Amino acid sequence: MIKAGIVGGTGYTGVELLRILATHPQVEVACITSRTEAGMAVADMYTNLRGYYDLAFTEPDVEVLAQCDLVFFATPHGVAMRMAPELLARGVRIVDLSADFRIKDLDVWARWYGMPHDTAEWAEKAVYGLPEVARDAIRNAELVANPGCYPTAVQLGFLPLLENGLVRTGHLVADAKSGASGAGRQGKIGMLHGEVGESFKAYGASGHRHLPEIRQGLEQAAGGKVGISFVPHLVPMVRGIEATLYAELDNPADFDRLQGLFEDRYRDEPFVDVMPFGSHPETRSVRGENSCRMALHRQEDSPIVIVSSVIDNLVKGAAGQAVQNMNIMFGLDERAGLQAPALLP
Amino acid sequence: MIKAGIVGGTGYTGVELLRILATHPQVEVACITSRTEAGMAVADMYTNLRGYYDLAFTEPDVEVLAQCDLVFFATPHGVAMRMAPELLARGVRIVDLSADFRIKDLDVWARWYGMPHDTAEWAEKAVYGLPEVARDAIRNAELVANPGCYPTAVQLGFLPLLENGLVRTGHLVADAKSGASGAGRQGKIGMLHGEVGESFKAYGASGHRHLPEIRQGLEQAAGGKVGISFVPHLVPMVRGIEATLYAELDNPADFDRLQGLFEDRYRDEPFVDVMPFGSHPETRSVRGENSCRMALHRQEDSPIVIVSSVIDNLVKGAAGQAVQNMNIMFGLDERAGLQAPALLP
Amino acid sequence: MIKAGIVGGTGYTGVELLRILATHPQVEVACITSRTEAGMAVADMYTNLRGYYDLAFTEPDVEVLAQCDLVFFATPHGVAMRMAPELLARGVRIVDLSADFRIKDLDVWARWYGMPHDTAEWAEKAVYGLPEVARDAIRNAELVANPGCYPTAVQLGFLPLLENGLVRTGHLVADAKSGASGAGRQGKIGMLHGEVGESFKAYGASGHRHLPEIRQGLEQAAGGKVGISFVPHLVPMVRGIEATLYAELDNPADFDRLQGLFEDRYRDEPFVDVMPFGSHPETRSVRGENSCRMALHRQEDSPIVIVSSVIDNLVKGAAGQAVQNMNIMFGLDERAGLQAPALLP
Amino acid sequence: MIKAGIVGGTGYTGVELLRILATHPQVEVACITSRTEAGMAVADMYTNLRGYYDLAFTEPDVEVLAQCDLVFFATPHGVAMRMAPELLARGVRIVDLSADFRIKDLDVWARWYGMPHDTAEWAEKAVYGLPEVARDAIRNAELVANPGCYPTAVQLGFLPLLENGLVRTGHLVADAKSGASGAGRQGKIGMLHGEVGESFKAYGASGHRHLPEIRQGLEQAAGGKVGISFVPHLVPMVRGIEATLYAELDNPADFDRLQGLFEDRYRDEPFVDVMPFGSHPETRSVRGENSCRMALHRQEDSPIVIVSSVIDNLVKGAAGQAVQNMNIMFGLDERAGLQAPALLP
Repeated sequence: MIKAGIVGGTGYTGVELLRILATHPQVEVACITSRTEAGMAVADMYTNLRGYYDLAFTEPDVEVLAQCDLVFFATPHGVAMRMAPELLARGVRIVDLSADFRIKDLDVWARWYGMPHDTAEWAEKAVYGLPEVARDAIRNAELVANPGCYPTAVQLGFLPLLENGLVRTGHLVADAKSGASGAGRQGKIGMLHGEVGESFKAYGASGHRHLPEIRQGLEQAAGGKVGISFVPHLVPMVRGIEATLYAELDNPADFDRLQGLFEDRYRDEPFVDVMPFGSHPETRSVRGENSCRMALHRQEDSPIVIVSSVIDNLVKGAAGQAVQNMNIMFGLDERAGLQAPALLP
Repeated sequence: MIKAGIVGGTGYTGVELLRILATHPQVEVACITSRTEAGMAVADMYTNLRGYYDLAFTEPDVEVLAQCDLVFFATPHGVAMRMAPELLARGVRIVDLSADFRIKDLDVWARWYGMPHDTAEWAEKAVYGLPEVARDAIRNAELVANPGCYPTAVQLGFLPLLENGLVRTGHLVADAKSGASGAGRQGKIGMLHGEVGESFKAYGASGHRHLPEIRQGLEQAAGGKVGISFVPHLVPMVRGIEATLYAELDNPADFDRLQGLFEDRYRDEPFVDVMPFGSHPETRSVRGENSCRMALHRQEDSPIVIVSSVIDNLVKGAAGQAVQNMNIMFGLDERAGLQAPALLP
Repeated sequence: MIKAGIVGGTGYTGVELLRILATHPQVEVACITSRTEAGMAVADMYTNLRGYYDLAFTEPDVEVLAQCDLVFFATPHGVAMRMAPELLARGVRIVDLSADFRIKDLDVWARWYGMPHDTAEWAEKAVYGLPEVARDAIRNAELVANPGCYPTAVQLGFLPLLENGLVRTGHLVADAKSGASGAGRQGKIGMLHGEVGESFKAYGASGHRHLPEIRQGLEQAAGGKVGISFVPHLVPMVRGIEATLYAELDNPADFDRLQGLFEDRYRDEPFVDVMPFGSHPETRSVRGENSCRMALHRQEDSPIVIVSSVIDNLVKGAAGQAVQNMNIMFGLDERAGLQAPALLP
Repeated sequence: MIKAGIVGGTGYTGVELLRILATHPQVEVACITSRTEAGMAVADMYTNLRGYYDLAFTEPDVEVLAQCDLVFFATPHGVAMRMAPELLARGVRIVDLSADFRIKDLDVWARWYGMPHDTAEWAEKAVYGLPEVARDAIRNAELVANPGCYPTAVQLGFLPLLENGLVRTGHLVADAKSGASGAGRQGKIGMLHGEVGESFKAYGASGHRHLPEIRQGLEQAAGGKVGISFVPHLVPMVRGIEATLYAELDNPADFDRLQGLFEDRYRDEPFVDVMPFGSHPETRSVRGENSCRMALHRQEDSPIVIVSSVIDNLVKGAAGQAVQNMNIMFGLDERAGLQAPALLP
C-alpha cells in the first residue's frame, strides 16, 4: 500500500481526494493536515465520509509527512512552495494541486500570484501534470504540478488543433464556465448561495490567473506564440466546467479530417472521450468522474472550428487528475480508484 | 457472474441501476429493455455510461429475460404485475422497483393506483424489500417489492420508536421533501426546470400514493393501527429526500435512552447511519450513496421526538436498495457494488 | 413625501427596502447607513438599482437620521435597541426589521439572543407589526417590531384555527422551509453556494430563535398556552418560505366550515390569499410580492388539518411587510409601493 | 386606455406580458387566447396573477381580437404569419413575439424554420423592433417583429463597434448562455429539472435559428457582410441571458475611446446601461427588468475587445421589449409599465 498524505485537507479538493482514495485499492491515506481544524475528525466535517475514515485533521508536521510515499498539496498558492523542498529532499514525491509550480516563467508567476517565487530550482524540475501530454515525464517526476481546472478543459480541447498546426494561433477564444465549487470553500460574500443562485455572470474577464497557464500549455503544443482570449463565467451549480473553444482553420478543407484526428489523438487515453461530431457534452456526464468529454462543431461553411469540452472541476480538474498522476508515478493501473461512471442525473 | 436484466431502462431508476451495476464485481447486465428506445445504445442516451456499456435497449422479450438470473423492473405501475408471473414461473427472481407488489391489501392498492390488481397470488408471496426489517425473508424471496423512496426514509426514521412502543401512534407527522428526479423522466410541464427551479411547494398534500405504503409498514412495526399525516414537497434539486418526523413520546423520560436505542437498532446495518443527537443530516451526504442517515432532536422540554432522515431517492430510495436486495437474495456481500462515498459537495 | 432613513442597508433586507421604495409614490429615501461601506454608492453594490438611486451609504449619524419621518432598522439584533430610543425621543417613528422588540418577555429574549435587553420601556411600547392582527395599534405606533420571516408564514396559517379555538393547542407542528437569502449576506462557509446548492437539510431543529416569537403570537391568538414543534429547513433557492402546518381539530366535523372560515378571516386583507381547498401554493407565486398565499388540506378522514402557507421571506417576511407597516402608520394606501404581481416563472 | 389582446397566452412570454401589463397605467388586457386552455382563468394557471386579473383564456376569435388596438402574438412560429394579415387589414396593430417576421430574406427564413413563408408582403413591411436601432420606424409601424432573446443581447453589445467600423467583421464570436425559460413551456424531456438542474452544456452549436437573425442585424449595422460564430448554452436557472462577445479591433489604439463611444451610443436609451469598463454584469441585475446591461473588457495588450451583455430573456428579450415597442407605437412614455428595479437577490 502506498502511504499518502494530504496537506490542507479542509477545502473541496481535500475532501474530493479523500472521496476518491476511499475506494483506491492500493493507497492508504496516512495523514491529512489542517491548521484551522486540527483535532477534528474528517468525517465530522465531511459527513459523506462517515464510515470510510477514522482519520482526524492534524497540524502539518514535516516528520509525519516525511513518512509518506506521496504527499498531495491541496493548499492555497504559496504553501507548497515553502513546504515541498524539505519533503522532496527526504524522498517524498509530491503532487501539488495548487498553482505554485505550474508556470515556468517565474516573473509571470510572480505577477499573477502577487508574491515572489522562492524555489526556482523546483519550479524548473516540476513536471506539469497533464498526462495526455507528459505521461512519460510524470512517471519519473519527483514533483508534479497538477494543472488548474480551466487549463485542463481548455488545453485538452485545443491540443489536437495546435499540435497539428491546423489553426491560426493569433486569436483563439476560450469561453469557459464553472460551477461554484471552483472558488473553493472560503467564506466569501460573493460566493454565497444568495449571490450565486439563479444568476450567471462572467468574472475575471480582464485577466484571470489561469490565462498564463493556458497560454504556456498552448504555446508548447503549437511550438510558438499563441494569442488567446479566455473568459471564465460562474454557473449556478456546484460542480462542472464547460469550455467552448473557437479557432480559425488555416485551411477549411481540414474540417473533413478533424473528427478522425481528434479520435486518433485520444484513442489510447483512458480519460478523454471524443464524442461524435455535433454532440453537446453535458457537465453532468462527468460529474464525479475523471473524464474530459469533448465534441466538435462547424456552423454552415464557416472556417471556425468550435470545440465544447467538459470536465468535473474537482475531478479531472483537480483531485481525480492528481490521483491519475499518482497512479502514473507509482506504476499503478492509471485508472485505479477512478473507475466509476459519473452521477447522472 | 449473475446475469441481470432490466425491464424499462430509460427512466432515472434504469440509468441508476446501470451506474451502480457498472462497478459491481459479481453482476453482468445481460439485457435492458425499452419499447420506445429499442435499438438505441444505452451510452447514447446516458452519456455517463460511455465506455462502460456496449449494450443497446431491446424490445422486452420473455425468452431473453428468462435467461437472466434476476430481472429488475424499473417500469411504471401495472407492467411488472403483467410480466412477472411468467418469468417467476420460469425460475427468474425479480426485484420490482415499481409499486405493483408493495401493498398487501389489494383493495387499497386498486384505489390508490386506479386499476384492479390481477395477481393476488404474487402480491401475497412478494417480500417487501426493506432489508432492515425483512432481511431473512428477502434471502429466499422469489419476488421482492422494492420500497418506495419516501416510504424508505420515513419508515427507517420511525421504526425504532414504533417497534419499542414508545410513542402515541395516533398522530404521527411525516413532512417529506424530494428532489425532482423522484418524478421520473417524462415530459410533464409541471416538472420543467422553468416550473421547478427557484421554487418550493407541497404536493399531494391531500393524499399521496406513498401514504398507504408508509402506513402499512408502520402498522406492522407498531403491531396496530397508526394515524399518520404525510406531506411530500418538491425541492428545486435533482436528487435527495429529507423527511422530518414528529411523534409524541408516551413517557418523555424516554428521551434519555432514545439515542442509544436508535444506535442499537441500526448498529449492524451497513446502510443506516445514526448521527449524534442534534445533528442535521444533509441530502448531499448521501448523494449517489445507498445510505440513510438520520438524527434525533428535542426542542426544550417538549414530549415530541423529532427525527430527520435523509436518503438519495434514486439509490437507497430505488436502485441502490434494489441492488442491496439482489445481494441479499444471491448471498453476496450486502455491500457489493455499493461501497463508495457520496459525492459531496 | 415621507422622508425615510435606512440603518444597516448593505444586507438583503436593505436592498429589498430600496427596491420596493424605488416605486413608492409617497416616500423618498433620504439616507441609508452602513459602517462598513460608507461612501459607496448603493447602485455600485446593488447593480439592479443603477438608474434608480444616486444615494451613497453613509456612517450612521443620529442628527441626519433625526431629519427623517421614519427610520427602518435592517440591522443585526442589538443595534436598534441601542439607537432607537434617541430617535424615538426626537419624534422619529421606527420600523425595526430586527428581532430587538419582537418578544415581550425580556428574559426569553435574552436567553435566545444571548445578550441582556436594555430598553424594557420600548420593548413594552413596541407594536408587533403583523397587520392582520394589529392594524389599529400599528396606525399609531411610534415603534413597530416587524415580524420575523418564519413567524409571519406560520402565524398567518394558524391564526384562524387558534382564534376560533378549533384545534388542540398542545402539539402543533410547523415544518418550515426557506431559501438561502434568509440567512443574510454574511460570508459564512455554511451558506456558500458550494454548501447549499443541490442539497436540503433541516437546521435549528433543536431550537431556533423564531420559536419563541411564533409561540408568543400563537398564544395571543389562542388565549392560552400553546405547544408547538417548529423545524426550519434550508432550500437550495434564493427566496421563499413555505410552512406546512399540522393541527388536530377538536371536532373533525369542523372541516366542513374551515375553508369559509379562512376566507372570511382574510377577506379584507390585501396581502393574504386563501386559495381553493386542496391547492398547493408555490413560493414562486409570491416571489418579489408582499402576499402570503395559503391552502387547506385533509387526508382521508383524518382529524388533522394541514395548512400550506408561502411568502417571500424578503418581502412579506421582511421589507415588504415593513413598507406595509409604514403605509399604515402614515395613513397611506396600505398597498402603496406593493402593487405588482410576483415574478413567475 | 389602450385595449390589448394576447394570442397564445399560456407560455412564459404570455404570462410575462400579463405580469408587466398588470401595472401599466394606460393599457387594459381585453382578451387572451389559448386553444388548449380556453375557459381556464389565467389566475388559475398563473397563481402570481391572482388578484390582478379576472380574465379567462378564450378560443382565438378574429372578431374579438379585431376590437383591440393592439394584439401581441406569443405563439410558436407559423401562427402569426397566418392570423396577422386579417387583423392588420382591419386596422389592428401587432407586435409579434414569434420569429415569423424577423427575417427579411424569406428563403433564409424558410430554411431555418422548416416551412415556407406565405406572407411576403407583411414580412417586408414589418419593422424589426429593436428600439435602439429602429425607434422611428417603430413609431408608425403596423406590424413590429419583436426581436429574439439572444439577438437582443448580442446585437446591443456589438452595435457600437460595427456602426463605427472599428472591428474586423469576418470572425466575430458570440458565446451566449440562457436560463431554461427560454425554451418555453412545453413538456420536453430535455427541459425537465432532472435534466437541466446542476448541469451545463452548449446546444445548437452547429447552427441555431437565432444565428441568421443576429447576422441580419449585425450586417445592417456594419453595412456589409459579417462572419459570426454563435453558440448558445443552457444554464441551470430560470431567467437570464448573458452573451460574451469577442471582436478584433482594426486599430488597438481605439481601446482608449471605446468606453466613451459605448456610453455615447446609449446615453439616451432608457433600457441600455453601459457599466464602467471592466465590470461584470450579472443576469440577476436585470431579473424581471427591461434593461440590457453591458461592460467592456480587454486582456493585457490584446487587440480583442470583449463585451459582456446581460438581459432577462423574458423581459428585454421578449415581453418587456414588446411593451416598450407598444409604448413607442402609441406615443406613450417609453418606460410606462417598465419602471421597477430588478429583483436582486
